[in-house]
Amino acid sequence: MSEFSFPQFSTMKVAVLAGGVGGAKLVLGLDRVLSPGNLTTIVNTGDDFTHFGLKICPDIDSVCYSLAGLANKSYGWGLEGETWYVADALESLGAPTWFQLGDRDLATHLERTRLLGEGKKLSQVIADFCNRWDILSRVLPMSDDEAPTLIETKAGTVLPFQDYLVREKAQPEVNHILLHGGFEPSPLPEALMAIQEADLVVIAPSNPWVSIDPILALRGVREVLKEKHVVAVSPIIQGKTIKGPAAKMFAELGIQPSSLAVLRHYSDLLDLFVYDASEKPMFSSDILEGVSTIQLQTIMTDEADKIQLAGAILQHFIDLIGAQ
Amino acid sequence: MSEFSFPQFSTMKVAVLAGGVGGAKLVLGLDRVLSPGNLTTIVNTGDDFTHFGLKICPDIDSVCYSLAGLANKSYGWGLEGETWYVADALESLGAPTWFQLGDRDLATHLERTRLLGEGKKLSQVIADFCNRWDILSRVLPMSDDEAPTLIETKAGTVLPFQDYLVREKAQPEVNHILLHGGFEPSPLPEALMAIQEADLVVIAPSNPWVSIDPILALRGVREVLKEKHVVAVSPIIQGKTIKGPAAKMFAELGIQPSSLAVLRHYSDLLDLFVYDASEKPMFSSDILEGVSTIQLQTIMTDEADKIQLAGAILQHFIDLIGAQ
Repeated sequence: MSEFSFPQFSTMKVAVLAGGVGGAKLVLGLDRVLSPGNLTTIVNTGDDFTHFGLKICPDIDSVCYSLAGLANKSYGWGLEGETWYVADALESLGAPTWFQLGDRDLATHLERTRLLGEGKKLSQVIADFCNRWDILSRVLPMSDDEAPTLIETKAGTVLPFQDYLVREKAQPEVNHILLHGGFEPSPLPEALMAIQEADLVVIAPSNPWVSIDPILALRGVREVLKEKHVVAVSPIIQGKTIKGPAAKMFAELGIQPSSLAVLRHYSDLLDLFVYDASEKPMFSSDILEGVSTIQLQTIMTDEADKIQLAGAILQHFIDLIGAQ
Repeated sequence: MSEFSFPQFSTMKVAVLAGGVGGAKLVLGLDRVLSPGNLTTIVNTGDDFTHFGLKICPDIDSVCYSLAGLANKSYGWGLEGETWYVADALESLGAPTWFQLGDRDLATHLERTRLLGEGKKLSQVIADFCNRWDILSRVLPMSDDEAPTLIETKAGTVLPFQDYLVREKAQPEVNHILLHGGFEPSPLPEALMAIQEADLVVIAPSNPWVSIDPILALRGVREVLKEKHVVAVSPIIQGKTIKGPAAKMFAELGIQPSSLAVLRHYSDLLDLFVYDASEKPMFSSDILEGVSTIQLQTIMTDEADKIQLAGAILQHFIDLIGAQ
């Protein structure tokens, strides 16, 4: 929350912290609103896992496919016009099919695995893919190190995140979330630098527990954020989520799921908090000192919604800074 | 070449040593001619390699796809009715495409890689696949250990076999063939036992240098074979091969490629040697003492050819044994 003189809108630099589906939507809007190259997305890698020997990065792929205009328009994941020949053959071999692998999506996992096997860092591989897909924004994994999010259930089992989310359909009750899976990953230096150089940092409407916290928990990230203007967008709307288990997780961790709970989750970092226009306005006594709030249409069903939300957030930030 | 009393034809047990394409053809013929379950195929794994993080076993897959009735009828590899969506996506990602990966073929590699990653042995994985594909014959990898065939070229480079064969299209001149790639693989115990229990061992018309020698070079295999009746089928016809670089390799290793050269290659093991009916008969002075020869139609273009050759070999073996 530093002293700040706002630059031309067209030269505004934004860093966004994002997970998968909801995050990817706002990332697309920001990419379209900002000047080419002025957006850096720092993506959660806590969901990354190895399946059939392949390195799979669900959140990075959601963000990249979205930015490349390749994302499936109906599902929150995967590619538009995808085919399923490999998946059908896997099923007929009796292989596990809980994680859906489309044919073209598989090519991404195969080539990523090959390049990592050659010794390339994940960040280099993602940069190669973005270049190949004509993505002008920068997409950075939060870390090049292993940092798996593990879910400890109330039944006492410990599940890698995709096992919990996809295989178990997020049904087990969450007792505890173990970020970074016992590893000590370093934040990607370029990610820290992108935050430092940003005029505004946006926390996307992703799951606070398992999409954003893994990034915030990296060494030095909170410290850098505290020097910056930060806006968060609530993924909770009227106590529910559009997709994903964030609301269920809040409840299981003993917190009433609400936008206010999200605001409090990020309390020490925020300048501005965005929650949905359909909600009852928060009591001003609930809102933390020094944090502005605004209600916007946060449900993004098409590209126009994404652009509109991104533009509204940036404009409100400009107004807020101008008024200070 | 033991003393031997020939059992009923229907109870005859055969072990066949085989590589990929040519081997798979005769294996299919033998599978169809023998009683269900009486054929064991011991397959070269020297071609096995890791590509895109996946374990690929070209010769095992050729044999299994053939036995399962899934093999492509035009090419010597892959599956009939294959699709190429992943391969197209890999190409558009700029990934290497020298090794063709069909969609359904990929499922085999993925599930094999997954099962090996779970700690299953290759022989168990192949048994699972054979069961899934309703293959009644047994298919055994020559070893569960790593045993890569390496090609040292006259230019001094050392290439894994598939890199030499497929990526380099077998163009580099061969200086030396390094079997087992510096590892010391153990033969699969079930493979040794299958040879011991066989009434006849067939060396398929596969490349002697890189398909059969890797099996013969395993500890104890030659010793067990010397106690058995062994028939080899020449992969060289009028100095050439139907497919693959065997003839070129003979020449580069300083040996005139011919059926006689193949006969001499296996000289210490054979009771019977089969070469193509189209060739000029060998001079009897060239033929080794104790080895019978027969000329048969060895070019197998359809399933009837494969069955006919397999039946003719077995019948000739019966006649030969009966006459002793």
